[in-house]
Order: sequence, then C-alpha cells, then structure tokens
Amino acid sequence: MNFPSKILERAVEEISQLPGIGKRTALRMALHLLEVPKTRTDNLTKALTHLVHDIKHCKKCNNLSDTEVCTICANPYRNEKIVCVVEDVRDVMAIESTRQFNGKYHVLGGRISPMEGVSASDLCITPLLTRVKEQEIEEIIFALSATIEGDTTMFYLYKILNNTEIKFTTIARGIGVGDELEYTDELTLIRSLQNRVPYQQGLR
Amino acid sequence: MNFPSKILERAVEEISQLPGIGKRTALRMALHLLEVPKTRTDNLTKALTHLVHDIKHCKKCNNLSDTEVCTICANPYRNEKIVCVVEDVRDVMAIESTRQFNGKYHVLGGRISPMEGVSASDLCITPLLTRVKEQEIEEIIFALSATIEGDTTMFYLYKILNNTEIKFTTIARGIGVGDELEYTDELTLIRSLQNRVPYQQGLR
Repeated sequence: MNFPSKILERAVEEISQLPGIGKRTALRMALHLLEVPKTRTDNLTKALTHLVHDIKHCKKCNNLSDTEVCTICANPYRNEKIVCVVEDVRDVMAIESTRQFNGKYHVLGGRISPMEGVSASDLCITPLLTRVKEQEIEEIIFALSATIEGDTTMFYLYKILNNTEIKFTTIARGIGVGDELEYTDELTLIRSLQNRVPYQQGLR
Repeated sequence: MNFPSKILERAVEEISQLPGIGKRTALRMALHLLEVPKTRTDNLTKALTHLVHDIKHCKKCNNLSDTEVCTICANPYRNEKIVCVVEDVRDVMAIESTRQFNGKYHVLGGRISPMEGVSASDLCITPLLTRVKEQEIEEIIFALSATIEGDTTMFYLYKILNNTEIKFTTIARGIGVGDELEYTDELTLIRSLQNRVPYQQGLR
C-alpha cells in the first residue's frame, strides 16, 4: 500500500494487529476515525488504556473484574457450595445470560492443549484448590468445551480434586435445541442416547 | 451481554463503534488486548491519537498528509499540468500503486449524493478552482466511481470548470482484465464497445 502519510501508515499498522483485521479493514477504520468527531477517538483510546492498565482478575475466581473480588464472588445471595469451572470470561457471560445458574464460578483462563503449547501450569488452578480446601463445596460443574482439549482439562482437574467428597458433574452433551437429528454427528447422538432423561411434558 | 466488569463493557462499547465491528468481535478484540503485552495497546492508542490530532489535509490537493503540502504535490518531478480528480485517499493509493500516473491529484473528499445528503458544498472543490485559475493545467482526469453519484459529481465539476481550455477526460469504462464477457453487465458491455481501441499485440 502506498500511504500518503506516515501517521496514517502507522495507525493502519497498529490497527491491523488486532485479531481478524487486515490492512484494508484497518485503513477503513482509520479513515472512519478521521471523519467522526475527535472525541470519539479520544474516548476509544481512553477506554483501551483503562482496560489494559486497570482491569483486575478476581482473586477468588480469576474472572475479569473492576475490583479485587468480582461482583459474582462478592454476592452473598449466590450459592458458594456450587462452583462452575469454565475456560474464560466469555463462558461466564454466556452462562450468566441464561439466568439459570446461581452458584459461583472458577475461570481457568484457557484449557490444556499440547497442540497450542498450553499445559496445566499455564492455567489458573491454585485458587480453585484453595477454595476446595478452605470452603465447604458440594458440587463442581465442569462447563468446558466438548473437545479433546476440554476433556483433557476436565480429566486433569478431576484427578487432582478427586480425593475430596465433592460431587463432580459436567454439562449435558446432546443435540442442541432446534437441531435436527439427521445432521447431528454420531458421537453427539451416542451421548444423547446414553444420557437420556425422563420425558417432561411441555419442556423442549 | 452480561459484562463482569464496567471497564471491559466500556471498552467493548467503544470498539464496537468502529465500522463493521459488532459487540462480539469487539469483545474478542478487548480480550485479545488483555492477553498481549500492554505496550501493544499503548502503541495502538498513541497511533490513533496521533492520527486524529496531527494528520493534515494537503492545502493544494486535499490529500491526507503529514505536512502542509503533501509529498506528491511537493514532488518537482511530477507533471503539474495533469490533475487527476478522485473521491478519497484510497483512490490516490490505488492509482499510486499502479505506478503509471505521473501527474498530480485533487481529492474531493466524497461525491455528490442526494441520497446520503452530500451536496457539492460538502466537497472540497475551491482549491481545484484556485489551481485551475493560477496554474497552467492541460488535462483534468476524472477518476470517480462508475456510479450515478460519480457521474453526477463529474457532470457538476465539468459544468463549473468548462469555461477553461482544459481537456477533460475520464478513466475508461469497460470489462475488467480477467473478467468474462458472459458475466459483464449490459451497460459496461455497451461502453466497452463504444470505446473500443485499436488492437495491440501482447497487450491485455
């Protein structure tokens, strides 16, 4: 690209470092910022600076938080005895938006993946072990990806936590609501047959 | 979306103001910035601030520039007598990357579009009129979009500039190199027949 300006070139270079953004899209964004009021860009840069410098990880559950302890961990109305183990913040957000879970979370910050060079030591596990030792926990729900990596992580955590009297569960695998049987893969079908549940009228 | 942190929510909000970026992509970008070294974000915000506060429009041709007069206008080896009129910076970049044009540019900053509420007064035309008056210009090439809006803009400029002895040209419209006749629209085919050129061996 023949940039008419070094300033523009550098901005495009920096924007295109973002995931999924190529040079062309970055250029479009830079020119867009030049068209809108400057305060918009100032707000954006302030928000980004604030984000990377001031956000914290909750010291109890490792979720992203504005404070030392996140709002979920600090909420006395949530059941401390049930801990849902997830991979990252997006999973917490997804489960929270269902409004069906009233326990607490533990955010691993990834999953064991030898292919991507992520081992158990790269994950945040220690606070979970501390919680298991210090608090009375009845159930740990594994809400991890239904992939080899998710399964490996689940197996690892189960091994190191299993000498306790906690009940371990994993979220159900089966055909998605709205999916057709015809297009469901074999393994999912096998699981959904194995884990069949009593029929309840009116429930999908 | 149930954000665990106000700081994250604001960052996502600001990022999603960029063109073509939804909330989900914005969240992915924000979480990406939290994973990479903080200096990356600092570089990005610095580049964006620099962009909107320090970039200039060349006072001769209205192209984006780091200096009062852009590098193209300041280049004494380029032919001042040929001016190529384009809509925006991207068009200058596209033509420059062909390395086939040695004249100067004039950047309108848009095109007349009643549908989008853009009239002639919103475009940068005065510096072009000044140049036509003060300098000896032989040819003005209209390199505008081959759309109704581009044609309207071209017609308007032709009307206000036509009392001069300048030669007005427009870039050729025809089928693109590599295109198949079968998939070319009628109007383009008509234009490419009307404007047929003598056959030259070895030239596509």
